[in-house]
Amino acid sequence: MGQIARHWYFNKRPKDVIEADTLVLREDPVPALEPGQILIRSLYMSLDATNRVWLSDWDTYMDPLPIGARMLGFILGEVAESQNPTFPKGSLVTGLGTWSDWIVTDAEGWAPFPRPEGIPLSDAFGILAVAGPTAYVGLLEIGKPKPGDTVVVTAAAGAVGALVGQIAKLHGCRVVGVAGSDDKCKWLRDDLGFDAVINYRKENLLDALKREAPNGIDVHFENVGGDQLDAGLTLMNEGGRVVICGLISTYNSSEPVPGPYMFRNVIMKRLTIQGFVILDYAAHFPEYHAKLIEWMRSGELKYRIHIEDGLENAVDALRMLYTGGNNGKLMVRIAPDAR
Amino acid sequence: MGQIARHWYFNKRPKDVIEADTLVLREDPVPALEPGQILIRSLYMSLDATNRVWLSDWDTYMDPLPIGARMLGFILGEVAESQNPTFPKGSLVTGLGTWSDWIVTDAEGWAPFPRPEGIPLSDAFGILAVAGPTAYVGLLEIGKPKPGDTVVVTAAAGAVGALVGQIAKLHGCRVVGVAGSDDKCKWLRDDLGFDAVINYRKENLLDALKREAPNGIDVHFENVGGDQLDAGLTLMNEGGRVVICGLISTYNSSEPVPGPYMFRNVIMKRLTIQGFVILDYAAHFPEYHAKLIEWMRSGELKYRIHIEDGLENAVDALRMLYTGGNNGKLMVRIAPDAR
Repeated sequence: MGQIARHWYFNKRPKDVIEADTLVLREDPVPALEPGQILIRSLYMSLDATNRVWLSDWDTYMDPLPIGARMLGFILGEVAESQNPTFPKGSLVTGLGTWSDWIVTDAEGWAPFPRPEGIPLSDAFGILAVAGPTAYVGLLEIGKPKPGDTVVVTAAAGAVGALVGQIAKLHGCRVVGVAGSDDKCKWLRDDLGFDAVINYRKENLLDALKREAPNGIDVHFENVGGDQLDAGLTLMNEGGRVVICGLISTYNSSEPVPGPYMFRNVIMKRLTIQGFVILDYAAHFPEYHAKLIEWMRSGELKYRIHIEDGLENAVDALRMLYTGGNNGKLMVRIAPDAR
Repeated sequence: MGQIARHWYFNKRPKDVIEADTLVLREDPVPALEPGQILIRSLYMSLDATNRVWLSDWDTYMDPLPIGARMLGFILGEVAESQNPTFPKGSLVTGLGTWSDWIVTDAEGWAPFPRPEGIPLSDAFGILAVAGPTAYVGLLEIGKPKPGDTVVVTAAAGAVGALVGQIAKLHGCRVVGVAGSDDKCKWLRDDLGFDAVINYRKENLLDALKREAPNGIDVHFENVGGDQLDAGLTLMNEGGRVVICGLISTYNSSEPVPGPYMFRNVIMKRLTIQGFVILDYAAHFPEYHAKLIEWMRSGELKYRIHIEDGLENAVDALRMLYTGGNNGKLMVRIAPDAR
């Protein structure tokens, strides 16, 4: 068919931060479809902290991405051609795809994406693809907060953190958010209704947490790791739950990183520390989506979407996650939505 | 009544290991009993790794022991005089008492100790007071092993570890024990039926664990911490449970100790890391005791008791726990059993 696709390829393993030659953009012809296959025109790509993990040589929750492979990411696309009756031409699909403007796949691991009425497609994808289910599962199923509990969330202005705090508020908790700028803190407190916010760049986090969580912490939702996790562990109440959703402060390191210094509190405070990978919960997404869409429509769940334009800018966009440069859920628009 | 009691007093907070002047032995007259009180003649005292924690200025699971207070320990004694009908003269009692040969108490926190038929009193106390319930709760209620699971236990020849391994065997698991001498390893394998044993002083633990747990680790029962915990975390299977019973490698440190370097595996392998304090489970002890006594009588649960004689030798005995100098459950005999 003569169609050309652009793909980001994994070129060279980064030692620490993502470098200019870590990923390279190349063009390949799009092959003709075989029976069962579909051709996806990518519309949006979600950028998530965990993307960096896929570039490490750690033993992680997925098979390691080999050098020379196309970079992986969560994609929303439109079926441009179809040899698969489950995914008719013109329908929306979402899945773990590649950083490509055109994708040919047998559709394994892809799912139809219902276009929710009254919510822009970018917002629906940004919240429902990864961040929303992650916040929902991590807070409610793993953190198990009770009304009146104090919930602390780090990277609180991030895509997941902002949702975690609001869902915790909806469940009657006192919510303390930790973020890295006064602007982010203001947004969390004034627009999202967090009870307290701490700019960890401006004051000692442990001291600030003692002030803002005077009754101790019942659920600590960790996105960052390092000092922030340690501050939380120090102030956990007995029987508290520590949800390890992300450890972004450690993902750029190729050297071994020490675990939390207050690890002994897992005994002293009888804590449960539990990690999770949202991919494991895919079968339950429709249930989470129904609840999330309800809250999005009612305005109970507020969010910011940060869109960078163009597949060619994907690497620069990804780097923002590690510098706190994004404001809200970070996505790349690869092509305009046809509708 | 002119009776004199000897007590160990907390004299000076140790910086690292327990020092000669950390605890001092002094004599005090025994006061006359008030209504509701009992006078206990101490028979045995259990020495447990957690004793060292009580001497730290950490925020732990108990109120800190103030300098000048009598040192705390788990005691088995005989009621020598009673002004409390629940504890008649001549009956056995157990509880968290002080390092003393005579104890006057209102009996709060003390419980009658049934003398199990066919089991020496020292053994019954040594296994049932702390180590047995700790192994039972930690392995079965927190570790939740399934038949066929691989269970790794560190300090495997210690009081708790040896029981954990045997209870795991009784539940159909593959059991790998980590200990610090060939003698201990031989005992675990030949007498206790562990499937594999590793002397961590003689070979690289991670390499040895890869060999002895070729299918990965489902339940890691940690008594030590540090490198041993890291080796276990590295080889955990997805969804594995990491039971934090003790972190004895860290208790002698007054400086902050880094947590496990492989902490990221809590996400990558979707782990649950959970700590516990056996004191929280006191209400369920009769249920655990019934099961443990059954296994002790049938010979399914084997154990070694290491008795040091004399309250005056308690400090030297406690130090053994940190050098691996004891063989089996460590206790001090304070007075001979009258029967």
